[in-house]
Amino acid sequence: MFGVYSDGTLDPSYAAYNGLLALQHRGQESCGIAVNDKGVISYYKDMGLVTEVFSHEILDRLRGQMSVGHVRYSTAGASVRENAQPLVMRYIKGTLAIAHNGNLTNAFELHQLLAKQGSIFQTTIDTEVFAYMIARERVEAPSIEEAVHRAVKKVHGSYSMVMMSPQKLIGVRDVHGFRPLCIGKINNSYVFASETCALDACGAEFVRDVLPGEIVVADENGLRSIRDEVTEKKSLCVFEYIYFARTDSVIDGISVYEARKKAGRLLARQNPVDADIVIGVPESGIDAAIGYSEESGIPYQKGIVKNSYIGRTFIKPSQSERETSVRIKLNSLHTAVKGKRVVMLDDSIVRGTTSARIVSMLKEAGAKEVHLRISSPPFLWPCYYGTDIPSKDDLIACQHSIEEIGKMSFADSIDFLKLENLPKMLDVSGIGCSGICDACFSGKYPAEIPNYLVAQKNYDYCTPIKRL
Amino acid sequence: MFGVYSDGTLDPSYAAYNGLLALQHRGQESCGIAVNDKGVISYYKDMGLVTEVFSHEILDRLRGQMSVGHVRYSTAGASVRENAQPLVMRYIKGTLAIAHNGNLTNAFELHQLLAKQGSIFQTTIDTEVFAYMIARERVEAPSIEEAVHRAVKKVHGSYSMVMMSPQKLIGVRDVHGFRPLCIGKINNSYVFASETCALDACGAEFVRDVLPGEIVVADENGLRSIRDEVTEKKSLCVFEYIYFARTDSVIDGISVYEARKKAGRLLARQNPVDADIVIGVPESGIDAAIGYSEESGIPYQKGIVKNSYIGRTFIKPSQSERETSVRIKLNSLHTAVKGKRVVMLDDSIVRGTTSARIVSMLKEAGAKEVHLRISSPPFLWPCYYGTDIPSKDDLIACQHSIEEIGKMSFADSIDFLKLENLPKMLDVSGIGCSGICDACFSGKYPAEIPNYLVAQKNYDYCTPIKRL
Amino acid sequence: MFGVYSDGTLDPSYAAYNGLLALQHRGQESCGIAVNDKGVISYYKDMGLVTEVFSHEILDRLRGQMSVGHVRYSTAGASVRENAQPLVMRYIKGTLAIAHNGNLTNAFELHQLLAKQGSIFQTTIDTEVFAYMIARERVEAPSIEEAVHRAVKKVHGSYSMVMMSPQKLIGVRDVHGFRPLCIGKINNSYVFASETCALDACGAEFVRDVLPGEIVVADENGLRSIRDEVTEKKSLCVFEYIYFARTDSVIDGISVYEARKKAGRLLARQNPVDADIVIGVPESGIDAAIGYSEESGIPYQKGIVKNSYIGRTFIKPSQSERETSVRIKLNSLHTAVKGKRVVMLDDSIVRGTTSARIVSMLKEAGAKEVHLRISSPPFLWPCYYGTDIPSKDDLIACQHSIEEIGKMSFADSIDFLKLENLPKMLDVSGIGCSGICDACFSGKYPAEIPNYLVAQKNYDYCTPIKRL
Amino acid sequence: MFGVYSDGTLDPSYAAYNGLLALQHRGQESCGIAVNDKGVISYYKDMGLVTEVFSHEILDRLRGQMSVGHVRYSTAGASVRENAQPLVMRYIKGTLAIAHNGNLTNAFELHQLLAKQGSIFQTTIDTEVFAYMIARERVEAPSIEEAVHRAVKKVHGSYSMVMMSPQKLIGVRDVHGFRPLCIGKINNSYVFASETCALDACGAEFVRDVLPGEIVVADENGLRSIRDEVTEKKSLCVFEYIYFARTDSVIDGISVYEARKKAGRLLARQNPVDADIVIGVPESGIDAAIGYSEESGIPYQKGIVKNSYIGRTFIKPSQSERETSVRIKLNSLHTAVKGKRVVMLDDSIVRGTTSARIVSMLKEAGAKEVHLRISSPPFLWPCYYGTDIPSKDDLIACQHSIEEIGKMSFADSIDFLKLENLPKMLDVSGIGCSGICDACFSGKYPAEIPNYLVAQKNYDYCTPIKRL
Repeated sequence: MFGVYSDGTLDPSYAAYNGLLALQHRGQESCGIAVNDKGVISYYKDMGLVTEVFSHEILDRLRGQMSVGHVRYSTAGASVRENAQPLVMRYIKGTLAIAHNGNLTNAFELHQLLAKQGSIFQTTIDTEVFAYMIARERVEAPSIEEAVHRAVKKVHGSYSMVMMSPQKLIGVRDVHGFRPLCIGKINNSYVFASETCALDACGAEFVRDVLPGEIVVADENGLRSIRDEVTEKKSLCVFEYIYFARTDSVIDGISVYEARKKAGRLLARQNPVDADIVIGVPESGIDAAIGYSEESGIPYQKGIVKNSYIGRTFIKPSQSERETSVRIKLNSLHTAVKGKRVVMLDDSIVRGTTSARIVSMLKEAGAKEVHLRISSPPFLWPCYYGTDIPSKDDLIACQHSIEEIGKMSFADSIDFLKLENLPKMLDVSGIGCSGICDACFSGKYPAEIPNYLVAQKNYDYCTPIKRL
Repeated sequence: MFGVYSDGTLDPSYAAYNGLLALQHRGQESCGIAVNDKGVISYYKDMGLVTEVFSHEILDRLRGQMSVGHVRYSTAGASVRENAQPLVMRYIKGTLAIAHNGNLTNAFELHQLLAKQGSIFQTTIDTEVFAYMIARERVEAPSIEEAVHRAVKKVHGSYSMVMMSPQKLIGVRDVHGFRPLCIGKINNSYVFASETCALDACGAEFVRDVLPGEIVVADENGLRSIRDEVTEKKSLCVFEYIYFARTDSVIDGISVYEARKKAGRLLARQNPVDADIVIGVPESGIDAAIGYSEESGIPYQKGIVKNSYIGRTFIKPSQSERETSVRIKLNSLHTAVKGKRVVMLDDSIVRGTTSARIVSMLKEAGAKEVHLRISSPPFLWPCYYGTDIPSKDDLIACQHSIEEIGKMSFADSIDFLKLENLPKMLDVSGIGCSGICDACFSGKYPAEIPNYLVAQKNYDYCTPIKRL
Repeated sequence: MFGVYSDGTLDPSYAAYNGLLALQHRGQESCGIAVNDKGVISYYKDMGLVTEVFSHEILDRLRGQMSVGHVRYSTAGASVRENAQPLVMRYIKGTLAIAHNGNLTNAFELHQLLAKQGSIFQTTIDTEVFAYMIARERVEAPSIEEAVHRAVKKVHGSYSMVMMSPQKLIGVRDVHGFRPLCIGKINNSYVFASETCALDACGAEFVRDVLPGEIVVADENGLRSIRDEVTEKKSLCVFEYIYFARTDSVIDGISVYEARKKAGRLLARQNPVDADIVIGVPESGIDAAIGYSEESGIPYQKGIVKNSYIGRTFIKPSQSERETSVRIKLNSLHTAVKGKRVVMLDDSIVRGTTSARIVSMLKEAGAKEVHLRISSPPFLWPCYYGTDIPSKDDLIACQHSIEEIGKMSFADSIDFLKLENLPKMLDVSGIGCSGICDACFSGKYPAEIPNYLVAQKNYDYCTPIKRL
Repeated sequence: MFGVYSDGTLDPSYAAYNGLLALQHRGQESCGIAVNDKGVISYYKDMGLVTEVFSHEILDRLRGQMSVGHVRYSTAGASVRENAQPLVMRYIKGTLAIAHNGNLTNAFELHQLLAKQGSIFQTTIDTEVFAYMIARERVEAPSIEEAVHRAVKKVHGSYSMVMMSPQKLIGVRDVHGFRPLCIGKINNSYVFASETCALDACGAEFVRDVLPGEIVVADENGLRSIRDEVTEKKSLCVFEYIYFARTDSVIDGISVYEARKKAGRLLARQNPVDADIVIGVPESGIDAAIGYSEESGIPYQKGIVKNSYIGRTFIKPSQSERETSVRIKLNSLHTAVKGKRVVMLDDSIVRGTTSARIVSMLKEAGAKEVHLRISSPPFLWPCYYGTDIPSKDDLIACQHSIEEIGKMSFADSIDFLKLENLPKMLDVSGIGCSGICDACFSGKYPAEIPNYLVAQKNYDYCTPIKRL
């Protein structure tokens, strides 16, 4: 998610393109850019990677003063062309383009409410519901930001959003701050981005993070903010640090890289092991491995090589595609692990199948021992806030003890980061980050989850429509 | 526009494919098919011809009991992917797929009304407005057909529609019957189609035309109809006979071919000319030429050959593309016209440029004289009901006398079908066709046109959105 | 097949594009254009129609002083990308681009000869063999035209060719003149084309046909010709007039349209029938029907409408695709044929299935009688010269008497153009066209056919290579 | 480059697909797979990555007992579709498919020789010349392997090849062994691959490397070898270890990873520096950095993050594309480098622009000092053996002293691996690897370079043909 309000010195479409390239790890299914040229929106979006969808020719035709861009991976709504973002629409006050990251927890109720008043839905994404809420508030509200301000009070769940009205670029973050959103500046142009790495990519300087519950407006008068007193505890998604974000980003004041290294250090302290080398499962496991090595003194080595021409496992939609790509995407570095006692760091265990395959591969390559260290606690609870964690039936930690998981992984020992160590990993003292959401580990959901969602994750709130 | 309610013996996707192929002349920009499998809609639509967009693989995946298909050329709303039909959506009662042919004359008011109540618009087609009107009525109405029944009372202009709810296939025709819509049957399957040629293409037998103001429902109970007493005069678009429809279709009881031949006969009587051969500008001019030849006794010859690998002039969106394609799409048959006095039949004159080019070409090929005969009256008025006639500034007959047009066309003589001969061309006595709309020739609009539309044809009722 | 030698006023790539559009009926599988910019060849070719393969962007990048273009349908060599033409290559004297129409009858021997000397073959088209023969002669020959002159003496069968060396555009026609090739001029630019309709399409004036056995060179010195005394009888393929060529072309001095009309007239005389209307199967049957109507006095009518959005039956490669497209490509014009005794003209009968389907369709539409008249004699012999006529097993006339064919076609009567009437159809008196090849009807092959070809038509002279 | 001779238990097309995926780093422009089904070759190739070009559908249609696959980046011959490999052809003995890695140094002479005997060339790749040489020898030679044996004596330069005749899979390596080629086995199936990582990817066990000058044949009788006494010194390309190969491959007995780490260790010894952290430029610089860290005791850190969604710099064809992609593909890890004295390892310096950009980026991110260490000696000489090193004019080390390069790179100190340390980096004692080619550093070319090549690198030996 990326937005630009340009002072004329920054090209909004190329800046968005570069920003989205830097954010590509956040979604590989579809992408899009909308630009605003004095109220007239042009946009282009399609299935595929940023480099596949956009060309010089297309970017050159996307002229304007503002832009909103998006990369998508589906947590709600099918992986189809119609669901690509930004959502571009006309409403009572002209045009609106919305890019949205997160999951609404009351989308079903809102959808029902809207449908009962005669609304129609052409996509299956939450964003459309949000768009309706804003459009309806705008009937009475004196400004788009005020309409957003009123709408967010009725919308529950996790969301960061960047939207573009004819005159304004608006960034919004939910009251819990589940999803990251930051502000950058380059000359007098303003940039909103999901992660700071995207600011770097287009040469913008980091200004600050958008606060939970804050609505930030960039327009010809510069930057201004609307924010009610927020009583909710801040609940930034812990998984951003563990897996989702890019290692060179700094989210809400905490370096992702440092957090991951810290997790490695904590694991080294939790349960020391006598070993020859420390290796990491690319990419996030490598950071933890460096930390583990620093703490334990066991030398860090490359032990697993990733084929960089195959996409990110976690993000691919169907299970079958996941299996095939695992088999060919990682290889053990035989000469490094042969005859060695290996500590292997990985970021998480979901189904356990991947870990088992990697450990086996290392042993076939001659590793004498493999000690599996996971830089997060076991997954025990579903996420309703926008991370695609499978249902409990598929979570190995819901079905098996840690010891069993170790055996099923063929590991000589196993350890997970302890839940009580999470606050140490994300040291928030002194930087104003008051809290994180660790519900997937702890079951403590910061925002209420409706019963029907609890009953069925990924609730299909309507008869399905399939786009071939 | 095509719809199928299958008894299980007719494959809805393949039938729709064949039907749309037969209707391809009605629109070449985009096409789509939606199927309904027990309430679950699957669909596929894209820019391009039916043969380009669909493949066996896609049709095989479109399984179900009902289908709705559409081919589009843009009269309102840009020629972009988002505007492709059928429009598929979810609403209060599940799914709905709508295919729509025609132009609403109060789309702007309805759009404003809806926007003022917080509605959002993701396309720029009238169909979306119509969909909202139906969805809103459905909140109270006891059935989808009753919702449609109530909605059509609020929607003005020209439209034929085929739509598909979870249980029903519904065909609708506006109270004036501007656009054609007919019913076919094959075993116990029902088919709705814009023209009878599409019934032939899928082996269906013609049952009857849908009546103006009629709502016809096909479901498990067979066919039934809702129709209020209609006080409006029937006003089938005359241009369907002159140009739009395929020559092998029969619309509201009148054969398109016979109507075109009759126009030729009437022209022969209007203003006899001494000539050696009669030729027609392909395709519709050929039918008129055969009629002219019959009446006059002057032998019919092929005089102009059309390159069948280049699309229909009239339908291409931009003027520049039109020019290029004219130059290479028609060629004179030198040996047939050389040294001959030629009567040349064409269906209409819009800007006059095409006629001038064709007459010149014939003269270069050695034609001694070229007598231009137009099988319709001069275009003098814009169409608000779904035919893409340019504004008055571009209509040659609004700027020049018939004599001048003749000279500008390099023709030795020129004649248009007289307005008073139109009723003779479309002989409605005894077949229940009570009237046609000839507003583009006569300026007599059967349905009221709002002032803002008169002021500006193709009124852009909102800030534009451009889809690259 | 099309070639341009430009004096600078004609754009070689756009002229080739327009020329190929006009020749699209000769091949719809693949197409290509090569241009020569001072000896540097650029080219583009792919599977598909001219309008599908080329864009403004591509044509703009094809700059130069000469061009060679080709549209392909496969008679020898699979329908794959590698076989698209023109064949572009480097040889001893730089670059060469060759477009070729026809079939070599000694390709197998030449291929074997070349292979035995260490040659490699990357396509499965005859053209590659021809290219080798030219390249080998060029080692000794003082000029490219002399190399061609020597090569053609060793190459048997049917071919017209246009080729482009660094300095020259060369047109070649085999000694029998099986395939057409004509010369056009526009300012001081020269154009070679398979048919005159392509000269018209790019505004060129007809100069003359290339003579059988003639090699015509266009270069900076204008046009010049090499031609040995030819003892072979001219043998232009009769099927060019009956089916292959476009009706507005004039080949070797005879108008295709007039020839087809003449066939209709001859049929009317051969076997008069009492009927109400005469109709033709589009496209070539229509010309014959007009002729039949003129001779018989029975009025001509449109009786069958062709869907112009589906490609030419004859040209599609596989039988299965042929069947499907027949069913949806033609429709009877019910109002014209109902209750009528119909004479229906078609150009030929191959398997008989299409005729049977069309006659049935007319009867279902209410035709009282259908009298089938075929504007060519029955197919009895295979063609080795480049027309894709199936083997005897598939030719209905090889298996059944004319009477039987009539019955199998559900026709009330049937007649074929008599073989002895062919010379009347193609009246060559006074225009220097000394003869035609009617081997497919008569079995009299003007050029010797090797035994292995007689044994197996479409001889696969090598282990096959399949390009997916 | 990858080849499979299957015993029936290994699917040749899927194995080739997985193998090519593992070798994708060796070429990203085009790729292809040919399979042999009892002498009938099917193939598919196109521009693009392996994942872009191939689908399940295509792989399923590529059935057979053998396969040959290739990924290409252009060192000779343009980056166009026609030049994609494997080259598939027919010759005197049926079909042949050839995949080739390397550059012939006498391609020009051979091309001239062949052209003078009437050969034609349809591609601009060396492989076509090689194919001719083999086809010509096969006329007399008793077997394909003997033909290859005779042909290789006439062909100079660097090449590894995998080829497939109707009955045999053949692997060939030039007498100097410039390019790697190894043999794997899985059950009784044999696999040839450029690198061992591709054996791992399809589950094959490493058997041995093909020897310089060896021709290895796999057929129904298993594996056999032809090899003349080789007098040339083995000259494996040093750049395979430094940059080209994947870190998990073992080439000619030496682990790429260990070689790179060794280079880092040697640099640490060459010129110790007082610093806080060691970082590497991804990917190959990371291995060297780990080695440097081990030797120096300075902690290894991630300091630069690579965007894994953008392709490999070195391999992109044009300079302009290279520049753009550098700017967005690497980012500094601010929190790791801020305030630190940094040792940065990179694999090589070509033009120097990339190094300068990276050092600047680190300094902007707050690095106090940046000490640049290059794990190879300076590039001073062009490569004629298949590595795309630019001409001397573009090599910074040919224009500037090492000190100057350091300044131009904004580095606080700079050091290159000393030429005399190369043998230490690639420790060949006891593993039979008798030598490497370091001509790009030393100017000592193991195989003679013709004068015209010295005069002009990338000699265009013919009038160019451009494929759009």
